[in-house]
Amino acid sequence: MDDCVFCKIVAGDIPCYKVYEDEDFLAFLDMYPVNHGHTLVIPKKHYDNIFDLPNDIASKYFVVVQKIAGVVKNIMDADGINIGMNNLPAAGQVVFHSHIHVIPRFKNDGLNHWGNKEVNQDEMNKIAEKMKESIK
Amino acid sequence: MDDCVFCKIVAGDIPCYKVYEDEDFLAFLDMYPVNHGHTLVIPKKHYDNIFDLPNDIASKYFVVVQKIAGVVKNIMDADGINIGMNNLPAAGQVVFHSHIHVIPRFKNDGLNHWGNKEVNQDEMNKIAEKMKESIK
Repeated sequence: MDDCVFCKIVAGDIPCYKVYEDEDFLAFLDMYPVNHGHTLVIPKKHYDNIFDLPNDIASKYFVVVQKIAGVVKNIMDADGINIGMNNLPAAGQVVFHSHIHVIPRFKNDGLNHWGNKEVNQDEMNKIAEKMKESIK
Repeated sequence: MDDCVFCKIVAGDIPCYKVYEDEDFLAFLDMYPVNHGHTLVIPKKHYDNIFDLPNDIASKYFVVVQKIAGVVKNIMDADGINIGMNNLPAAGQVVFHSHIHVIPRFKNDGLNHWGNKEVNQDEMNKIAEKMKESIK
Protein backbone atom coordinates (compact mmCIF):
# COMPACT_ATOMS: atom_id res chain seq x y z
CA MET A 1 0.00 0.00 0.00
CA ASP A 2 1.27 3.40 -1.00
CA ASP A 3 1.05 5.05 2.39
CA CYS A 4 2.20 2.08 4.51
CA VAL A 5 5.54 2.53 6.25
CA PHE A 6 6.14 -1.24 6.50
CA CYS A 7 5.41 -1.70 2.77
CA LYS A 8 8.02 0.99 2.16
CA ILE A 9 10.49 -0.90 4.36
CA VAL A 10 9.78 -4.11 2.40
CA ALA A 11 10.31 -2.22 -0.86
CA GLY A 12 13.60 -0.78 0.45
CA ASP A 13 12.32 2.80 0.24
CA ILE A 14 12.76 3.25 4.00
CA PRO A 15 15.82 1.71 5.71
CA CYS A 16 15.54 -0.74 8.58
CA TYR A 17 17.80 -2.72 10.89
CA LYS A 18 17.15 -5.99 9.08
CA VAL A 19 17.46 -9.22 11.04
CA TYR A 20 15.96 -11.81 8.71
CA GLU A 21 14.31 -12.13 5.34
CA ASP A 22 12.77 -14.95 3.37
CA GLU A 23 10.31 -15.16 0.49
CA ASP A 24 7.29 -14.21 2.60
CA PHE A 25 8.57 -12.48 5.76
CA LEU A 26 10.89 -9.76 6.95
CA ALA A 27 12.18 -9.24 10.50
CA PHE A 28 13.78 -6.00 11.68
CA LEU A 29 14.45 -4.14 14.92
CA ASP A 30 11.58 -2.07 16.31
CA MET A 31 12.55 1.61 16.27
CA TYR A 32 10.69 2.04 19.57
CA PRO A 33 12.00 -0.96 21.51
CA VAL A 34 10.44 -1.97 24.82
CA ASN A 35 13.83 -3.55 25.50
CA HIS A 36 16.87 -3.50 23.24
CA GLY A 37 16.66 -6.25 20.66
CA HIS A 38 12.86 -5.90 20.32
CA THR A 39 12.18 -7.24 16.83
CA LEU A 40 9.18 -7.14 14.49
CA VAL A 41 8.24 -9.94 12.13
CA ILE A 42 6.02 -8.91 9.23
CA PRO A 43 4.63 -10.58 6.12
CA LYS A 44 6.04 -8.86 3.06
CA LYS A 45 2.62 -8.54 1.51
CA HIS A 46 0.29 -6.05 3.11
CA TYR A 47 -2.35 -7.47 5.42
CA ASP A 48 -3.90 -5.10 7.93
CA ASN A 49 -3.98 -7.45 10.89
CA ILE A 50 -4.50 -11.05 12.02
CA PHE A 51 -8.02 -11.16 10.61
CA ASP A 52 -7.06 -10.88 6.97
CA LEU A 53 -3.99 -13.14 6.85
CA PRO A 54 -4.47 -15.90 4.30
CA ASN A 55 -4.05 -19.46 5.51
CA ASP A 56 -0.63 -20.07 3.95
CA ILE A 57 0.84 -16.94 5.57
CA ALA A 58 -0.76 -17.71 8.95
CA SER A 59 0.72 -21.20 8.89
CA LYS A 60 4.23 -20.00 8.03
CA TYR A 61 4.12 -16.93 10.31
CA PHE A 62 4.56 -18.60 13.70
CA VAL A 63 7.38 -20.82 12.42
CA VAL A 64 9.31 -17.67 11.49
CA VAL A 65 8.40 -16.01 14.81
CA GLN A 66 9.70 -19.08 16.66
CA LYS A 67 12.99 -18.85 14.78
CA ILE A 68 13.34 -15.13 15.52
CA ALA A 69 12.41 -15.67 19.18
CA GLY A 70 15.37 -18.05 19.50
CA VAL A 71 17.70 -15.59 17.79
CA VAL A 72 16.58 -12.65 19.95
CA LYS A 73 16.93 -14.72 23.13
CA ASN A 74 20.42 -15.90 22.21
CA ILE A 75 21.86 -12.66 20.90
CA MET A 76 20.39 -10.48 23.66
CA ASP A 77 21.12 -13.15 26.31
CA ALA A 78 17.51 -12.69 27.39
CA ASP A 79 15.84 -14.48 30.29
CA GLY A 80 12.50 -14.69 28.51
CA ILE A 81 10.64 -13.69 25.38
CA ASN A 82 7.23 -12.06 24.96
CA ILE A 83 5.40 -12.54 21.69
CA GLY A 84 2.76 -9.89 21.04
CA MET A 85 0.44 -8.82 18.25
CA ASN A 86 -1.87 -5.82 18.48
CA ASN A 87 -4.82 -5.92 16.15
CA LEU A 88 -6.86 -2.74 15.55
CA PRO A 89 -6.39 0.61 17.32
CA ALA A 90 -8.21 -0.42 20.52
CA ALA A 91 -5.55 -3.11 20.97
CA GLY A 92 -2.70 -0.64 20.50
CA GLN A 93 -2.03 -1.22 16.80
CA VAL A 94 -0.35 1.86 15.35
CA VAL A 95 0.99 0.63 11.99
CA PHE A 96 -1.75 -1.11 10.03
CA HIS A 97 0.43 -3.68 8.35
CA SER A 98 0.22 -6.84 10.46
CA HIS A 99 3.30 -7.36 12.63
CA ILE A 100 4.32 -9.60 15.51
CA HIS A 101 6.53 -8.25 18.30
CA VAL A 102 9.36 -10.41 19.67
CA ILE A 103 10.43 -8.77 22.91
CA PRO A 104 13.45 -9.88 24.95
CA ARG A 105 12.82 -9.84 28.68
CA PHE A 106 15.25 -9.72 31.57
CA LYS A 107 14.86 -10.60 35.23
CA ASN A 108 13.63 -7.54 37.09
CA ASP A 109 13.34 -5.38 33.97
CA GLY A 110 10.39 -3.68 35.62
CA LEU A 111 7.79 -4.46 32.92
CA ASN A 112 4.52 -5.69 34.37
CA HIS A 113 1.58 -7.47 32.79
CA TRP A 114 -1.99 -6.27 33.05
CA GLY A 115 -4.01 -7.32 36.06
CA ASN A 116 -7.15 -9.40 35.82
CA LYS A 117 -10.87 -8.86 36.14
CA GLU A 118 -13.09 -10.62 38.67
CA VAL A 119 -14.71 -13.75 37.33
CA ASN A 120 -18.39 -14.68 37.52
CA GLN A 121 -18.76 -18.39 36.77
CA ASP A 122 -22.19 -18.08 35.17
CA GLU A 123 -20.93 -15.36 32.89
CA MET A 124 -17.84 -17.43 31.97
CA ASN A 125 -20.10 -20.36 31.11
CA LYS A 126 -22.30 -18.21 28.88
CA ILE A 127 -19.33 -16.69 27.07
CA ALA A 128 -17.69 -20.07 26.47
CA GLU A 129 -20.95 -21.57 25.20
CA LYS A 130 -21.55 -18.69 22.80
CA MET A 131 -18.01 -18.98 21.44
CA LYS A 132 -18.28 -22.74 21.09
CA GLU A 133 -21.60 -22.46 19.28
CA SER A 134 -20.24 -19.87 16.87
CA ILE A 135 -17.42 -22.18 15.72
CA LYS A 136 -19.67 -25.15 14.94
CA MET B 1 3.27 -34.04 32.50
CA ASP B 2 1.93 -35.22 35.84
CA ASP B 3 2.08 -31.90 37.64
CA CYS B 4 0.95 -29.66 34.77
CA VAL B 5 -2.43 -27.99 35.24
CA PHE B 6 -2.97 -27.58 31.48
CA CYS B 7 -2.17 -31.26 30.85
CA LYS B 8 -4.82 -32.03 33.47
CA ILE B 9 -7.30 -29.79 31.64
CA VAL B 10 -6.50 -31.57 28.36
CA ALA B 11 -7.01 -34.94 30.08
CA GLY B 12 -10.34 -33.74 31.52
CA ASP B 13 -9.12 -34.10 35.11
CA ILE B 14 -9.62 -30.37 35.73
CA PRO B 15 -12.69 -28.64 34.22
CA CYS B 16 -12.42 -25.65 31.91
CA TYR B 17 -14.69 -23.30 30.02
CA LYS B 18 -13.97 -24.94 26.68
CA VAL B 19 -14.24 -22.81 23.55
CA TYR B 20 -12.68 -25.01 20.86
CA GLU B 21 -10.96 -28.32 20.42
CA ASP B 22 -9.34 -30.15 17.53
CA GLU B 23 -6.83 -32.96 17.23
CA ASP B 24 -3.87 -30.86 18.33
CA PHE B 25 -5.22 -27.81 20.17
CA LEU B 26 -7.60 -26.78 22.91
CA ALA B 27 -8.96 -23.28 23.58
CA PHE B 28 -10.63 -22.28 26.84
CA LEU B 29 -11.36 -19.15 28.84
CA ASP B 30 -8.56 -17.81 31.02
CA MET B 31 -9.59 -18.03 34.69
CA TYR B 32 -7.78 -14.74 35.29
CA PRO B 33 -9.08 -12.67 32.37
CA VAL B 34 -7.55 -9.30 31.55
CA ASN B 35 -10.93 -8.59 29.93
CA HIS B 36 -13.94 -10.89 29.84
CA GLY B 37 -13.64 -13.35 26.99
CA HIS B 38 -9.84 -13.63 27.36
CA THR B 39 -9.09 -17.06 25.88
CA LEU B 40 -6.05 -19.35 25.92
CA VAL B 41 -5.03 -21.56 23.02
CA ILE B 42 -2.78 -24.48 23.95
CA PRO B 43 -1.32 -27.47 22.15
CA LYS B 44 -2.70 -30.65 23.71
CA LYS B 45 0.75 -32.15 24.00
CA HIS B 46 3.01 -30.64 26.61
CA TYR B 47 5.63 -28.22 25.35
CA ASP B 48 7.11 -25.79 27.86
CA ASN B 49 7.17 -22.72 25.64
CA ILE B 50 7.73 -21.44 22.10
CA PHE B 51 11.27 -22.77 21.99
CA ASP B 52 10.37 -26.45 22.09
CA LEU B 53 7.34 -26.49 19.77
CA PRO B 54 7.89 -28.92 16.90
CA ASN B 55 7.50 -27.55 13.40
CA ASP B 56 4.12 -29.12 12.66
CA ILE B 57 2.59 -27.67 15.84
CA ALA B 58 4.14 -24.24 15.25
CA SER B 59 2.72 -24.16 11.73
CA LYS B 60 -0.80 -25.11 12.85
CA TYR B 61 -0.77 -22.98 16.02
CA PHE B 62 -1.24 -19.53 14.51
CA VAL B 63 -4.01 -20.74 12.19
CA VAL B 64 -5.97 -21.84 15.26
CA VAL B 65 -5.13 -18.60 17.08
CA GLN B 66 -6.41 -16.63 14.09
CA LYS B 67 -9.68 -18.56 14.16
CA ILE B 68 -10.10 -18.01 17.92
CA ALA B 69 -9.22 -14.31 17.56
CA GLY B 70 -12.15 -13.93 15.16
CA VAL B 71 -14.48 -15.78 17.51
CA VAL B 72 -13.44 -13.74 20.55
CA LYS B 73 -13.82 -10.48 18.62
CA ASN B 74 -17.28 -11.40 17.34
CA ILE B 75 -18.74 -12.88 20.49
CA MET B 76 -17.36 -10.20 22.82
CA ASP B 77 -18.09 -7.45 20.28
CA ALA B 78 -14.50 -6.34 20.84
CA ASP B 79 -12.86 -3.31 19.22
CA GLY B 80 -9.49 -5.04 18.98
CA ILE B 81 -7.58 -8.19 19.87
CA ASN B 82 -4.20 -8.63 21.52
CA ILE B 83 -2.30 -11.84 20.93
CA GLY B 84 0.31 -12.60 23.57
CA MET B 85 2.65 -15.38 24.55
CA ASN B 86 4.91 -15.26 27.59
CA ASN B 87 7.91 -17.53 27.42
CA LEU B 88 9.91 -18.26 30.61
CA PRO B 89 9.36 -16.64 34.02
CA ALA B 90 11.14 -13.38 33.18
CA ALA B 91 8.51 -12.85 30.47
CA GLY B 92 5.64 -13.47 32.88
CA GLN B 93 5.04 -17.16 32.10
CA VAL B 94 3.33 -18.79 35.08
CA VAL B 95 2.05 -22.11 33.68
CA PHE B 96 4.86 -23.93 31.91
CA HIS B 97 2.74 -25.51 29.21
CA SER B 98 2.95 -23.25 26.16
CA HIS B 99 -0.14 -21.11 25.69
CA ILE B 100 -1.18 -18.14 23.59
CA HIS B 101 -3.44 -15.45 25.02
CA VAL B 102 -6.25 -14.03 22.88
CA ILE B 103 -7.40 -10.88 24.66
CA PRO B 104 -10.45 -8.84 23.60
CA ARG B 105 -9.89 -5.11 23.82
CA PHE B 106 -12.35 -2.27 24.05
CA LYS B 107 -12.02 1.43 23.35
CA ASN B 108 -10.88 3.18 26.51
CA ASP B 109 -10.56 -0.04 28.53
CA GLY B 110 -7.66 1.56 30.35
CA LEU B 111 -5.00 -1.04 29.47
CA ASN B 112 -1.73 0.50 28.36
CA HIS B 113 1.25 -0.95 26.57
CA TRP B 114 4.80 -0.70 27.82
CA GLY B 115 6.79 2.40 26.95
CA ASN B 116 9.97 2.30 24.91
CA LYS B 117 13.68 2.67 25.52
CA GLU B 118 15.85 5.31 23.91
CA VAL B 119 17.55 4.15 20.75
CA ASN B 120 21.24 4.41 19.90
CA GLN B 121 21.68 3.85 16.16
CA ASP B 122 25.14 2.30 16.45
CA GLU B 123 23.87 -0.14 19.03
CA MET B 124 20.83 -1.00 16.88
CA ASN B 125 23.15 -1.68 13.94
CA LYS B 126 25.36 -3.97 16.02
CA ILE B 127 22.40 -5.90 17.41
CA ALA B 128 20.80 -6.38 13.97
CA GLU B 129 24.12 -7.50 12.47
CA LYS B 130 24.70 -10.04 15.25
CA MET B 131 21.19 -11.44 14.84
CA LYS B 132 21.53 -11.61 11.06
CA GLU B 133 24.87 -13.38 11.32
CA SER B 134 23.51 -15.94 13.78
CA ILE B 135 20.74 -17.01 11.38
CA LYS B 136 23.05 -17.64 8.42
